[in-house]
Amino acid sequence: MTIEKALVVGTGLIGTSVALALRDKGVAVRLTDVDVLALRLAVELGAGEVWTGEKVDLAVIAVPPQLVGERLADLQKQEVARAYTDVASVKAGPIADAVRLGCDQTSYVPGHPLAGRERSGPAAARACLFSGRPWALCPGSETEADAVRLVRDLVSMCGAKAVTVSAGEHDTAVALVSHAPHVVASAVAASLSAGDDVTLGLAGQGLRDVTRIAAGNPLLWRMILAGNAVPVADVLERIAAELVTAASALRSGDLDELTELLRRGVSGHARIPGTPVSPG
Amino acid sequence: MTIEKALVVGTGLIGTSVALALRDKGVAVRLTDVDVLALRLAVELGAGEVWTGEKVDLAVIAVPPQLVGERLADLQKQEVARAYTDVASVKAGPIADAVRLGCDQTSYVPGHPLAGRERSGPAAARACLFSGRPWALCPGSETEADAVRLVRDLVSMCGAKAVTVSAGEHDTAVALVSHAPHVVASAVAASLSAGDDVTLGLAGQGLRDVTRIAAGNPLLWRMILAGNAVPVADVLERIAAELVTAASALRSGDLDELTELLRRGVSGHARIPGTPVSPG
Repeated sequence: MTIEKALVVGTGLIGTSVALALRDKGVAVRLTDVDVLALRLAVELGAGEVWTGEKVDLAVIAVPPQLVGERLADLQKQEVARAYTDVASVKAGPIADAVRLGCDQTSYVPGHPLAGRERSGPAAARACLFSGRPWALCPGSETEADAVRLVRDLVSMCGAKAVTVSAGEHDTAVALVSHAPHVVASAVAASLSAGDDVTLGLAGQGLRDVTRIAAGNPLLWRMILAGNAVPVADVLERIAAELVTAASALRSGDLDELTELLRRGVSGHARIPGTPVSPG
Repeated sequence: MTIEKALVVGTGLIGTSVALALRDKGVAVRLTDVDVLALRLAVELGAGEVWTGEKVDLAVIAVPPQLVGERLADLQKQEVARAYTDVASVKAGPIADAVRLGCDQTSYVPGHPLAGRERSGPAAARACLFSGRPWALCPGSETEADAVRLVRDLVSMCGAKAVTVSAGEHDTAVALVSHAPHVVASAVAASLSAGDDVTLGLAGQGLRDVTRIAAGNPLLWRMILAGNAVPVADVLERIAAELVTAASALRSGDLDELTELLRRGVSGHARIPGTPVSPG
């Protein structure tokens, strides 16, 4: 049994992109959103039809992390789907909410597609957004195999690669590879307020790359960071300590440790999958 | 009078790229480097012929910042060129060295093309490396107009845009837009050593972008940072302080100031020339 009809709850960037990808695979997609304008735009973009309460095979909950548990509880109470997943970029919080609200854990497969854009909203959605990207799945001990199978079908239809991890591992991992780097990029971009237009005129591609993700929606990122606060704080403090040490080294003129940081940076960068190892 | 014959001293990435760009414009290019292998490779790549001591119109000194003054003094002693420039990414230090070594300031136009790649050496050189990029020029009060004109011709032949700034302004500016961001990117990349392969498998384009410049040559960057130590340390300390504040906010749960940092990041990013302002 596979996905013939799906419901996407929340027609922002991620939800609408999921809907478009499923439509491309011939799935009947129903959409709902508390934001009527976003819902109408997603329908106009061909992402699916407005949901009128009918049953579906899979419900994809694409709302901010803090609202996932509540929405899951509502949908399960109406017995809307055979399986449920979400796309929130943190996992421990939504799962704890679901437990607290007495949700059925057997049909819920917490998920997180590692994909995004600086733009948000349905107009920025693309069917190919997840193509080749990792998609974390965090099934618990109670999750039924059928539910996992259905959500893996979703991941596969979106062209992504399923990666199974525990919720705790996931949150620590994304703090390191996504959430803390976002805050650091914001801090670098914010530091540019100290520069005049001549200074900014000397900026190059390097600065553009370092700060690109800082263009993301501040309110969306506030919610993401709030949902993963301690792991992110841990990484930020480690990076801040490296920068303070580097600054001291520059002031003292003893640059061996700084050179070592630059070397560790080269090694760390080379470990990112898809990074070509520079031959030169 | 324009550039008919030029000497490039130092056939690394930048020197060889300058040579290739000048050759494309029909300039006779002579090359020299203490590294015989790099010199031979640059000649084989068509960047010019080995210099045998003849006079030229313009000498381009493309050596590490700490060696610019010394090399300028040597060349001027031999009266090699009508005008001299360098390409070091810091300016106050090389100029101070030149003054200390009694160099002729009338024919010297300190310069810095804001361009580069993660790879170094002549094999990475490209004639188009400077195309559309800013190229800082820091002529002093004694610099003659003819020398400035010749160096502006060089910038124009390389397809770059000349930006005239004082050496002090230049160094403060590049600390902000290039040198400190490099160290920050290194610190983010170095932090990845805390993650296992599953964690790194969740990395996306955002992390790749933030850390791309961290792949640069550590020994080259050590020299660049040493030459601009205090301005870089100032910026790093400001960024570290932002990160510590952000971490405290995450631990306390009071996220208003963090949201404000994210907003300032959006504004700072939008000020980088060539950054499209996101409509979404």
